[in-house]
Amino acid sequence: MSEDERLTELAKRRGFFFQSSGAYGGVAGFYVYGPEGATLKENLQDAWRDRFVRREGHMEIESPAIMPEPVFEASGHLDGFDDMIVECPECGASHRADHLVEDETDIEEAESIAIPDIEALIAEHDLVCPSCGTALAGESVEDFNLMFGTNIGPGSSSPGYLRPETAQGIFVEFPRLKEYARGQLPFGVAQIGAAYRNEISPRKGLVRLREFAQAELEHFVDPETDEPPLERVADVEVTLYSAAEQEDADGEPRTMTVREAVDAGVVGSDWVAYYLGVAQGWYERVGVDMDRFRYRQHQSGELAHYAADCWDAEAEVGGDWIEITGFAYRGDYDLSKHAEYGDDDFTIFKQYDDPVTVETATVDPDMSYLGPEFGGDAGAVKDALEDLAERDRSAFESDEVTVAVDGEDRTVPVEKTGFAVEEVTEAGEHVTPHVVEPSFGVDRIVYTVLAHGLRTDEAGETVDEGGGSGAEPSGEEADDGEERTVLSLPPEVAPTGVAVFPLMDKDGLDERAREIAEGLRAAGFEVAYDDSGSIGRRYRRQDEVGTPFCVTVDYDTLEDGTVTVRDRDTTAQARVGTDDLAGTIGDLLTGDRTVADF
Amino acid sequence: MSEDERLTELAKRRGFFFQSSGAYGGVAGFYVYGPEGATLKENLQDAWRDRFVRREGHMEIESPAIMPEPVFEASGHLDGFDDMIVECPECGASHRADHLVEDETDIEEAESIAIPDIEALIAEHDLVCPSCGTALAGESVEDFNLMFGTNIGPGSSSPGYLRPETAQGIFVEFPRLKEYARGQLPFGVAQIGAAYRNEISPRKGLVRLREFAQAELEHFVDPETDEPPLERVADVEVTLYSAAEQEDADGEPRTMTVREAVDAGVVGSDWVAYYLGVAQGWYERVGVDMDRFRYRQHQSGELAHYAADCWDAEAEVGGDWIEITGFAYRGDYDLSKHAEYGDDDFTIFKQYDDPVTVETATVDPDMSYLGPEFGGDAGAVKDALEDLAERDRSAFESDEVTVAVDGEDRTVPVEKTGFAVEEVTEAGEHVTPHVVEPSFGVDRIVYTVLAHGLRTDEAGETVDEGGGSGAEPSGEEADDGEERTVLSLPPEVAPTGVAVFPLMDKDGLDERAREIAEGLRAAGFEVAYDDSGSIGRRYRRQDEVGTPFCVTVDYDTLEDGTVTVRDRDTTAQARVGTDDLAGTIGDLLTGDRTVADF
Repeated sequence: MSEDERLTELAKRRGFFFQSSGAYGGVAGFYVYGPEGATLKENLQDAWRDRFVRREGHMEIESPAIMPEPVFEASGHLDGFDDMIVECPECGASHRADHLVEDETDIEEAESIAIPDIEALIAEHDLVCPSCGTALAGESVEDFNLMFGTNIGPGSSSPGYLRPETAQGIFVEFPRLKEYARGQLPFGVAQIGAAYRNEISPRKGLVRLREFAQAELEHFVDPETDEPPLERVADVEVTLYSAAEQEDADGEPRTMTVREAVDAGVVGSDWVAYYLGVAQGWYERVGVDMDRFRYRQHQSGELAHYAADCWDAEAEVGGDWIEITGFAYRGDYDLSKHAEYGDDDFTIFKQYDDPVTVETATVDPDMSYLGPEFGGDAGAVKDALEDLAERDRSAFESDEVTVAVDGEDRTVPVEKTGFAVEEVTEAGEHVTPHVVEPSFGVDRIVYTVLAHGLRTDEAGETVDEGGGSGAEPSGEEADDGEERTVLSLPPEVAPTGVAVFPLMDKDGLDERAREIAEGLRAAGFEVAYDDSGSIGRRYRRQDEVGTPFCVTVDYDTLEDGTVTVRDRDTTAQARVGTDDLAGTIGDLLTGDRTVADF
Repeated sequence: MSEDERLTELAKRRGFFFQSSGAYGGVAGFYVYGPEGATLKENLQDAWRDRFVRREGHMEIESPAIMPEPVFEASGHLDGFDDMIVECPECGASHRADHLVEDETDIEEAESIAIPDIEALIAEHDLVCPSCGTALAGESVEDFNLMFGTNIGPGSSSPGYLRPETAQGIFVEFPRLKEYARGQLPFGVAQIGAAYRNEISPRKGLVRLREFAQAELEHFVDPETDEPPLERVADVEVTLYSAAEQEDADGEPRTMTVREAVDAGVVGSDWVAYYLGVAQGWYERVGVDMDRFRYRQHQSGELAHYAADCWDAEAEVGGDWIEITGFAYRGDYDLSKHAEYGDDDFTIFKQYDDPVTVETATVDPDMSYLGPEFGGDAGAVKDALEDLAERDRSAFESDEVTVAVDGEDRTVPVEKTGFAVEEVTEAGEHVTPHVVEPSFGVDRIVYTVLAHGLRTDEAGETVDEGGGSGAEPSGEEADDGEERTVLSLPPEVAPTGVAVFPLMDKDGLDERAREIAEGLRAAGFEVAYDDSGSIGRRYRRQDEVGTPFCVTVDYDTLEDGTVTVRDRDTTAQARVGTDDLAGTIGDLLTGDRTVADF
């Protein structure tokens, strides 16, 4: 089995994730997180919130997934958020044309190829429908908009769309959010939530979903004066696969510190570099194998037209590199678009240290002269004079001034223009903030963490199956050498923190074990209780879902108040007291102590 | 200002919630949670998860909001999930017809009145369009389906809908979820997430949204053998407004224990009674004022046809009682419907303690006789014989047996029917579980908790504004008697746990204060930092957003390492050491200690 297949099998069997609506044949691109997966995802999101919101001092909001049409006219999604679709003339199946080309040729990143060229490539390479084998040469390739549409309220007069990214919910609300930041840059606003893309042909489980979760941070900065606290991450080592290295046949990802990357100009934006450094530590914290990780720069063809520099965090799973986060310097694109289409103030008023006095040239034309002289063009002449005064006040230095209206020169005596130069005191200026955006794909990170944590090894451990004759586990039924599947998740993200087992489901062991489980639950831990099958089997069950520690209650527990605690990764065991078991488990989960310390 | 207006003003100004897409004119029924509101909502959901999932030992899943059409054919939502709409012939505005009747007449619960009667009431009471005043008499009232529809994938061949409740995502996945419960009843599955209802005329902010959050628990039980652990909540006092009391002109809500309610038959289902008891403590824990709270039983007209008993938790806000949770015993309705429409096993196999041997009557008709005898009806005769054998084996005791096919009697010699009685040993039986459902409206609970926590009082406190001359606050600028707005949220749900202020933004006080804020953040607290304006003003800001404790760093801090800690509700202050400030704040937040203890 491939890594993806092994993971998908485990995920379905043990309740991490599976395709939704199976009783109705399933729907491609929609997955359910089962009990283990939902908790893992929630824990990952909490870890993200801790690092990118709480520790950075940013805000978090929650905005609706349905937004009205004008929002996406402004954002450009209605017009340009398309994939290329080709329909099979025989079976009617729809396919993503650029993916067909990538799958069947040596071409990469076919997404940036123009439609006529894709059509030519389909013909040239004799590509066929993957569903039925019919030749696709000559079939037209079309743009397909990826937005899910709906109607708000009765009738069809208020179209709405499910947001394709959580970010728009932040940009649109900027005029209010800036008030919560008391009008001061820089500030960051985060959102964790669902986003929707009507993919033509979703594939590979959690990697390309139609409904997915994003954790996005929009950091609004003054491009002239704000700088990131780069020193906090200057020494963090990152593996960078730059556009230049990608274009070079011998190019390789290179490892360097964030400081080196900035100094050498490998990462163009200090803000992007800062977040690459911050995120590096976070991926490691949540269980990404950093030997199967890199930052890859977008090549020029991939870059959105507004993005100055963009890097993807990529993780290797099953031999493929998958994008798990995008880091973009988006400039003022988003806020400027909403300022243009929306009716509100998308700028920050930046106060000068001292008010500035500037000379401003103005006109106040005598319309009783312009009217008779220029008739219907009088208004246009006035506008042209205003423009000219702003642009070139020297034009008003002679007796007459000439402006062009509809390609015709119009000459006006300066005395009729009301030209004047005034001194104006300005307390500050309106600035449209720039945006730095780290955008995390939560589902793909869940998938990566599971894939990177999954391993098979030999247990090589001794299991107490009922003897309980002494302080040490007696190991009557050793299962050394048995193969086991282990999910080595960091305790912070593991769905269950600790499992509690009664050695036997009798003699009061079950009651004592339930008490202990309740006590740990009340202390805030995620606790599993299992009384079914041998202790060895119960260990295996917990290993498979990544539970870091197991507690077994045996006959000694009733006598001396100790239990066996067993470590998932090392399979080491120790007897510990139950007096402060919650404290002990807490220390083990944070890594302050290990089982070997007891 | 009314309570609702005061709350809405505070919510918008301080970042709890506001209508979305304001720059595009806003969209009714869609709200944004600002930074304070998003955290409050998240904290409420965590408290729910702790109580209804972790502490009860249930599972939690996360399923997609978009589901395919067959799911809602099965659930009945496509057919029957309607509100009554009437359109104004003059201005075209759409209104909810039953609400118009309720608003303008003495009639309550108009939702359960039939459409022709609603039309008659509109005419009889001369109701007019609330938007333009045009008479609505004679206008037709129609059913309007509340589902948001969309299309999945290219083309329109796969319609999908946004779920109107998170519950369907649990019911549909039951065949897999039961595996995670190892096929054993009872077990509970919870989901917290977005649901969507295309309301005709949303109103009252968070109370009637088109996109809203639910926290639902579906507890699957064996109706014959499973019983709730009623003893855990038997002594909890609940205020019950029964259907009988509602129908009685002098009827009143009555307070009694859960045990009394069950014994007196006021609550018909033990399971519903159990969850009323559990939820009672939870509402109190998260800040619902239990003097403005009641459980109200559905009257017979309100009950869904499948629900045996249903109670709403209601909270009073601004003079109205709003439903914040529904508790329903849904029987086997949901699973049976999906078993009928879907292709999977929605039962639990219930093993008998000992295998049971039963006699089964079967037929195996001789088709070479039935064919010539009955022609095209032979198959129907065979089916009728099978039914009869199952139903009444005595019919096969004579020589001939007669069955009716299409209203015509058909007689068959028993020897040609292959009638036999067999002994079959059965290990168990398939049971369709019943469902107990507590369904919480998260947004309405946020709204209630804010409304019930909001109060205005006189500060009556002494504020140290810069003296810092001794161990006690010196109070140079007292602001006794100033009116203050306080949001008395329980610390568990308050968006910010602690605020840190430097007395002055200089002399190293700011650096020390930032260090302290960072330390508290690293310890996991939600921390606000504020260095702007007088300390009194900063207290007011934190009071308004419900921050339980404020820490002020002053000149003494630099000398003796103590800070002033101030309590939101009492405004009491104390000097505490910074050595274990995180421990101190932790104790204050959990209530283990109070400011008066220092």
